[in-house]
Amino acid sequence: MPKNRLEAFADGIFAIAATLLTLNLAVSEGHPLGQELLTIWPQYAAYAISFVTIGIIWINHHAMLQRLVSVDHAILVLNLLLLLTIGVLPFSTALMAEYLNASHGQNLAAVVYGGSFLLMSLAFFAIQRHLLLAKPHLLQDHLTPEVRQAVLRRNATGLLPYAVATVSGIVSPFLTLAICALVGVFYALPRTRFDVQHQRDA
Amino acid sequence: MPKNRLEAFADGIFAIAATLLTLNLAVSEGHPLGQELLTIWPQYAAYAISFVTIGIIWINHHAMLQRLVSVDHAILVLNLLLLLTIGVLPFSTALMAEYLNASHGQNLAAVVYGGSFLLMSLAFFAIQRHLLLAKPHLLQDHLTPEVRQAVLRRNATGLLPYAVATVSGIVSPFLTLAICALVGVFYALPRTRFDVQHQRDA
Amino acid sequence: MPKNRLEAFADGIFAIAATLLTLNLAVSEGHPLGQELLTIWPQYAAYAISFVTIGIIWINHHAMLQRLVSVDHAILVLNLLLLLTIGVLPFSTALMAEYLNASHGQNLAAVVYGGSFLLMSLAFFAIQRHLLLAKPHLLQDHLTPEVRQAVLRRNATGLLPYAVATVSGIVSPFLTLAICALVGVFYALPRTRFDVQHQRDA
Amino acid sequence: MPKNRLEAFADGIFAIAATLLTLNLAVSEGHPLGQELLTIWPQYAAYAISFVTIGIIWINHHAMLQRLVSVDHAILVLNLLLLLTIGVLPFSTALMAEYLNASHGQNLAAVVYGGSFLLMSLAFFAIQRHLLLAKPHLLQDHLTPEVRQAVLRRNATGLLPYAVATVSGIVSPFLTLAICALVGVFYALPRTRFDVQHQRDA
Repeated sequence: MPKNRLEAFADGIFAIAATLLTLNLAVSEGHPLGQELLTIWPQYAAYAISFVTIGIIWINHHAMLQRLVSVDHAILVLNLLLLLTIGVLPFSTALMAEYLNASHGQNLAAVVYGGSFLLMSLAFFAIQRHLLLAKPHLLQDHLTPEVRQAVLRRNATGLLPYAVATVSGIVSPFLTLAICALVGVFYALPRTRFDVQHQRDA
Repeated sequence: MPKNRLEAFADGIFAIAATLLTLNLAVSEGHPLGQELLTIWPQYAAYAISFVTIGIIWINHHAMLQRLVSVDHAILVLNLLLLLTIGVLPFSTALMAEYLNASHGQNLAAVVYGGSFLLMSLAFFAIQRHLLLAKPHLLQDHLTPEVRQAVLRRNATGLLPYAVATVSGIVSPFLTLAICALVGVFYALPRTRFDVQHQRDA
Repeated sequence: MPKNRLEAFADGIFAIAATLLTLNLAVSEGHPLGQELLTIWPQYAAYAISFVTIGIIWINHHAMLQRLVSVDHAILVLNLLLLLTIGVLPFSTALMAEYLNASHGQNLAAVVYGGSFLLMSLAFFAIQRHLLLAKPHLLQDHLTPEVRQAVLRRNATGLLPYAVATVSGIVSPFLTLAICALVGVFYALPRTRFDVQHQRDA
Repeated sequence: MPKNRLEAFADGIFAIAATLLTLNLAVSEGHPLGQELLTIWPQYAAYAISFVTIGIIWINHHAMLQRLVSVDHAILVLNLLLLLTIGVLPFSTALMAEYLNASHGQNLAAVVYGGSFLLMSLAFFAIQRHLLLAKPHLLQDHLTPEVRQAVLRRNATGLLPYAVATVSGIVSPFLTLAICALVGVFYALPRTRFDVQHQRDA
C-alpha cells in the first residue's frame, strides 16, 4: 500500500480525537456561571494537555512516515494499534477532568490518564522499533544503522516521562497533570541548532 | 469521477466512525471509580474489536480500490451503501457494550452486533462482486479471470465468521464477541510468504 | 485558491455530518430491548435517508467542482453557506426521528426535515447558478452555453421533490419521509445510456 | 515537513469543529415543538455565526499557507496552538446559545464567546507575524517587505472587532452576537477590484 493512504486515515483519526476532546468541556446548570467556569478548570487543563499531546504525536508520526518508502501488512497492523490508543484519549481525558477535584477516585483517574499516554507512547515505540530494526529495506536510503539506533534511543527516552506521570498518579493527580504538561512545553520550546541537525539526519 | 475523491470521502467516514466509538467509553457516577472501571470491561472489548474491524475493512477497501482505474455511478452508489453500514457500527457497538452484562436483552444485542458486521461484509462483497464480474474494463490490466475468481472466493469466505458470530448470539453474547475478536487477531497475524504472493497477484 | 483545498474541507464536512447521524441511533432503557429496537424504526429510516442524501449531494458537489478550473472568493463564500446547511442535517434528522411517532409536533418536524433538504438544495443551486452564469471563465473549456443551461435546468428540477416533501409534512410526516426516500432510490438506480452521455457532456 | 501534511491535519480540525457545532442544536422535550423551535433561536444564531467564522479562518489559513514554501518546528507548534483555540469554539458557542436568553450569566457567556474568537484571532496573528517577520526565507519569493507589512497590518486590524465584541458582552450579549455576525457578513461581501489586486499581491 502506498503510504499516503495510511497518512490520510491516520491524520483523520488524530484530528478527530483531538477535536472530540471539546465535548469534555461543559458547565453544569444550577450554579452561577462565573463560579462554574472557575470550578471546571481541570477540564481546560486536561483539554489543553491532551490536545497538545495528540498534536505532538501527530508531528512525530509524520517524521516516522517520512523515513519510509512504502508500508506493509505488519506496519498497517501496528499503526492500527497506535490509532486505537489515540481513540482512547478522549475517554481518559474526560476521566481526569471529572475526578481531579473529586473527593475519591482522583488518584486512579490520574493513573489511567498517565497510563493512556504511556500506552500510546509504547504503541508508537513498537512501530518505530519494527520499522528501524525489522524493515530497513522500506526506509529511505540515507538512514545508517547509527542514525537508526539514535532515533530509537530518543524514542525510548520519550517513554520515561509518561511512565513517571503514570506512577505519580498514586501520589498526586496534580503531579501527573504537571508532568504531562511539561512534556508538551518542552516539546514546544524552540529547537537548538543541534536538535535541528540531529533531526535532519534522522 | 477519479477514484481519489472517493477515497477521501471513504477515508473520512472510516476514520470518524472508528473515533466516534470512543464516545461509548464512559463511567457512571455513584460507584467507586475502581469498581466502575472493572465493571465496564465490555465497553473496552467492544471498542477494541469494533475499532480493529473498521481498520481491517479500511485496509481491504484500499486493496479493492487499488485494483480500479476509475469509478462509475454504480460503484459510487454501492460504496455509499457500504459507508452507511460503517456508520451503524458505533450504534451496534454501544448496544453490545451496554447489554453484554445485562440481565436481559444480551442475546439480541449480540445478534445485532454480529449482524452489523455481517451487513458491512455483505455490502463489501457486493461492491467487490460488481467490480470483478461486471466492470472488468475499470480494473487494472493484469487481473486475469482466475485471479478475479480467487479474490471473490476469498471475500465470500470472509462472510462466514460474521454469519456464525451473528447466529452465536442466540447461544451466548460472549461467543459472538470472541468470534469477532478472533477475526481481528487472525487478520493481524504476520502474513506467510504464500499470502503475500497471493495478495500481490490480486 | 486551488480547488483541491476546497474539496478537502468540503469532503471533511460531508463525511463528518453523515457519520454524526449515527449519534441519533440510540435505545432508551426501561423497555425490553426487542420491543425498543422495533419502536425506534423512525431512527433507522431517518438515518438511512439522510446518509444517502448527504452522499448524493457529495457526489453532485464533485461533479460541480470538476467543471471548474479554479475558485474565487464568491465561490468560497457560497460553498461555505452550502456546508452550513449540510451541518444542520444531523439536527433535522434527529427531530424527524424523535417526532415521527409522537402524538404532537410530528407535522412540524417533517416540515423542518423536508425544509432542511430544500435549503441544502437551494444553496447548491445558488453555487451552480453562480458558476455557470457568472463565472464561465473559471469553467473547463468544453462547456457550451447550451450544456450549461441544461445542467442548470436539471438542477432546478432537483429542487421540486424537496419542495413537495416539505409541504407534504403538513399532511403527513410519512409522506415527507417517503418522498425523500424516493429521491435517494431514484438516484441510486442504474443510469441509462442517455443519462451517461448527458452527464459526460456536462 | 512538507506543508501539505500540515494542511491535511488543520483542514480536518477546522471541518470537525465546524460540524460538531451541530450537536448544540437540540430541542428540549415537554414543550410544544413549535414554541420550542422559536425559543431556541439563539442556538441557530450561534451555530451560523460560529460556522461561518470557522470557515473564514479556514480560508485565511489557506491564504497564509500558500505564501509558504515549507514549514519548520516553530510554525508547527504555533499552528497547533491555533488549532487548540479552534477546538474550543464548540464549547463557547454552546455557552452562548444556552445563556443568551437566560436570566443570569448571559453577559459572562458573551464575554467568553467573544473572547474565544479573540483568542483564535490572536493565535492566528501570532503565526502570521512569525512567518512574515522571522521566517522570510520560508516564504514565496515575490513577497516584498512592503507587502509583508501590509498583510500584517490587515491582520492586526482584524483583531479589533473581536476585541470590541468581547468587551461589549459586559453591556449586552446581543451586541457581542451582532458584532460577530457583522464580521461574517462583511467578509462574505463581494470583493472590490481593489481588494482582489491587494490580495493577489499578498
